[in-house]
Amino acid sequence: MGERYDVIRADFTWVDGAMRPGLAVAVSPRTGRIVRVAPPEQLFGPDMGEEIVFAGRALFPGCVNVHSHAFQVLLRGRADHAPSFRHWVDEHMYPLVCGLDDEDLETAMLLAFADMLRHGYTAVGEFFYLHNGPDGEPDEVERAALAIETARRVGLRVALVRTLYDQGERPAQRRFREPPARAIERTRALAARYADDPFVRVLPAPHSLHGASGDLIAAGAALAAELGTNMHIHIAEQEHDLALSRERYGTTPLRALDRLGVVNERLVVVHGCWLEHEEWELLGARGGGLAYNPLANMFLGDGVTDLPYALRAGVRVGLGSDGPGGNNGVDPFAEMRAADLLQRVTRRRMGVIDEAARAAPRPLGAVPLFTLATEGSAGLLGFEAGRIAEGWACDLIAVDYSDLALQPHHGLEMPTLLHNMIHTGSSRSWITDVVVGGRVVLRDRQLTTVAPEQLRARIARLERGR
Amino acid sequence: MGERYDVIRADFTWVDGAMRPGLAVAVSPRTGRIVRVAPPEQLFGPDMGEEIVFAGRALFPGCVNVHSHAFQVLLRGRADHAPSFRHWVDEHMYPLVCGLDDEDLETAMLLAFADMLRHGYTAVGEFFYLHNGPDGEPDEVERAALAIETARRVGLRVALVRTLYDQGERPAQRRFREPPARAIERTRALAARYADDPFVRVLPAPHSLHGASGDLIAAGAALAAELGTNMHIHIAEQEHDLALSRERYGTTPLRALDRLGVVNERLVVVHGCWLEHEEWELLGARGGGLAYNPLANMFLGDGVTDLPYALRAGVRVGLGSDGPGGNNGVDPFAEMRAADLLQRVTRRRMGVIDEAARAAPRPLGAVPLFTLATEGSAGLLGFEAGRIAEGWACDLIAVDYSDLALQPHHGLEMPTLLHNMIHTGSSRSWITDVVVGGRVVLRDRQLTTVAPEQLRARIARLERGR
Repeated sequence: MGERYDVIRADFTWVDGAMRPGLAVAVSPRTGRIVRVAPPEQLFGPDMGEEIVFAGRALFPGCVNVHSHAFQVLLRGRADHAPSFRHWVDEHMYPLVCGLDDEDLETAMLLAFADMLRHGYTAVGEFFYLHNGPDGEPDEVERAALAIETARRVGLRVALVRTLYDQGERPAQRRFREPPARAIERTRALAARYADDPFVRVLPAPHSLHGASGDLIAAGAALAAELGTNMHIHIAEQEHDLALSRERYGTTPLRALDRLGVVNERLVVVHGCWLEHEEWELLGARGGGLAYNPLANMFLGDGVTDLPYALRAGVRVGLGSDGPGGNNGVDPFAEMRAADLLQRVTRRRMGVIDEAARAAPRPLGAVPLFTLATEGSAGLLGFEAGRIAEGWACDLIAVDYSDLALQPHHGLEMPTLLHNMIHTGSSRSWITDVVVGGRVVLRDRQLTTVAPEQLRARIARLERGR
Repeated sequence: MGERYDVIRADFTWVDGAMRPGLAVAVSPRTGRIVRVAPPEQLFGPDMGEEIVFAGRALFPGCVNVHSHAFQVLLRGRADHAPSFRHWVDEHMYPLVCGLDDEDLETAMLLAFADMLRHGYTAVGEFFYLHNGPDGEPDEVERAALAIETARRVGLRVALVRTLYDQGERPAQRRFREPPARAIERTRALAARYADDPFVRVLPAPHSLHGASGDLIAAGAALAAELGTNMHIHIAEQEHDLALSRERYGTTPLRALDRLGVVNERLVVVHGCWLEHEEWELLGARGGGLAYNPLANMFLGDGVTDLPYALRAGVRVGLGSDGPGGNNGVDPFAEMRAADLLQRVTRRRMGVIDEAARAAPRPLGAVPLFTLATEGSAGLLGFEAGRIAEGWACDLIAVDYSDLALQPHHGLEMPTLLHNMIHTGSSRSWITDVVVGGRVVLRDRQLTTVAPEQLRARIARLERGR
């Protein structure tokens, strides 16, 4: 291979939709990418550096959290019993936004990102909108960069989905709102700053039909084309979003985006609980994507996204946790399980996702939900991650397959173990090690990047200050 | 107190719906019941035996699994992608039933019960129906007693919900079917055998409207009255159960039971996804109960039980996992979370359970879902368990409240931590110790009753034999 590489191996490796024994992964420490997957004896040689062996473990690609608002982790346990979404926003989310100083923000993100990592996320799309200071003073301290640096410090690969927001008169919205030209300019500058970092992406993201003007949405799409990235936008999360779309644009949310000329292969809609079948077909035909957050949609009473229809229409789909305050957990396997079970129970039958995945224009792998949560999410963020293969990011999770909660697994036959991982939940219990870009960031269930005691002390300081 | 007692304490104890510091629990080793809850210095004295201190932990009552079919754990990872409930039964569940010898059955139950315990269940209602041998030879080996002994060996408190089944001509049903008189007689004998064991209950359970004749259902109810227990029965799990009820009884399922004269304060319906509002009102007015299994109902595509309506109608409710093959996980906190989120998303709003719990004729505690999963379930099985108070079973879980997944918890103010436990899932990660009847059965996350290596070896033998 001509360049130094490290070698990572376990008893089994998930390659091409099957558990394979006797393989090892060679990774370039310079790029963090996989340079070869082969039997270990074929990798021994003068260019080989460190060898990392996870005995008694199975290696899978890490999961990608397609949609996060990390600071919302501070709402955990306080906002889950709000009587309505409106209360959740007005009495919990917005007051938190108003009260959060930069140290608190960093503490929150450290906690959320560390917790994601322990649950098997190796990359995150952080949909970030806390640009201005608590009193609305313009963002000169680059809080978006703080989010990136915090995720990297914890060890995650990060796509900063940089929100564009120019609407709204509520006090909390002072922290989000910017003149359109400034929002575009700062997003462009942020992208330039990280252009050479293989672990970071910057994507423009008009917040929503209510948070961004039509002009800003169109400008966001133009910037995405300029940067060669996708553009994310919340739409049709709650049923009342339909009325707002009709009021502002005289039509339904995706059709409203189409009138703005932004429904193309770069468009990723977030949530989409209330899109019509024709809108899914339009999105699929144009090559667009869906960032789906099943547990958050349940938590907030949003509605049931027609995931099977979206898959059949050819929409590219990724899975995410959304803000941990509208969910409280950050477990990719819990999201896969919820996505599956919610479709089963609302359609009164089993097998819904499998059938839709088979009927989709692009194959979705042996275990469709896992494909969505790995390479599906990664693709929507612009990472070549989520698959153990040459050229892909070396982002891995090591699973203790002897764990009783995963038994029996019938001789590790494909893909029984992975089914168990999805349907028994509790990923943290059996994920022992996590690798991002070839670097071990969780080892024997301990973070190598963040000292939990220090993090707890920061959280205690934050709680005292409230 | 005059009798020897042990003392168990942690930093905080969940008493009367709040986290309380500085308390200890005194337990009688003879009865396994709590004799007093008081500051530790008040408990020091000549009658005090062992003192067990869980430092850095919070104590909660253990959860009670109101409905289990433990052997189904062997379907994990194999049956979850069945295309329909009919396939799940015919191609997975029934073939498993036919192929299971007694050693396999014991292995399966060891695995399922051990996994329940690690996730915070301290008692189980095992709805047991594998009475006969694989070829239908009558039950002389007392497999129901094997289930009881296995649960006790693992350390769980167990209610053997002894199924009565006299219908059906499918090969697998040979294992369930008995002449009514024999079914009643053997249930009575089993109850007599364990009458003096405070850790065991035996309840009669006509399987369902399709598995038990009307005569056997009526005989089961008479036996429940004789034994002073509840009677459990599956009804209205899938929509097609309505057609069967109409065909056999000319009416809906609960009305059919009412014609049989068995709708009273001893009746516990399992599932009830398709009961009408009038049926919930009837059940509530008569003092009956519901054994609710939200994740299994989702997994099998059963339907959405109207839990809020049932609560407002005064129905006594407990939560369970159902068979781990129709769920695959055995986490009481995942059930609480699913019960809550499923109501939110299907009703398109937050706060559904809280409102219903406040409107219920009986108060449901500071965190209603936790009340259902603890004393709610226990009551339906005939245990005085699920509360940390004098006279109640000393069944406890110790929680590492410093776990990052439970942060922040705002100074352990009531009931933030418990909200986090429900909404972050993953109970096994932060449950460190489990106590049943005053005995530590999980210590520092290790089972004290079963050696995992031996259990894994048994599972490997079982898998080789298949």
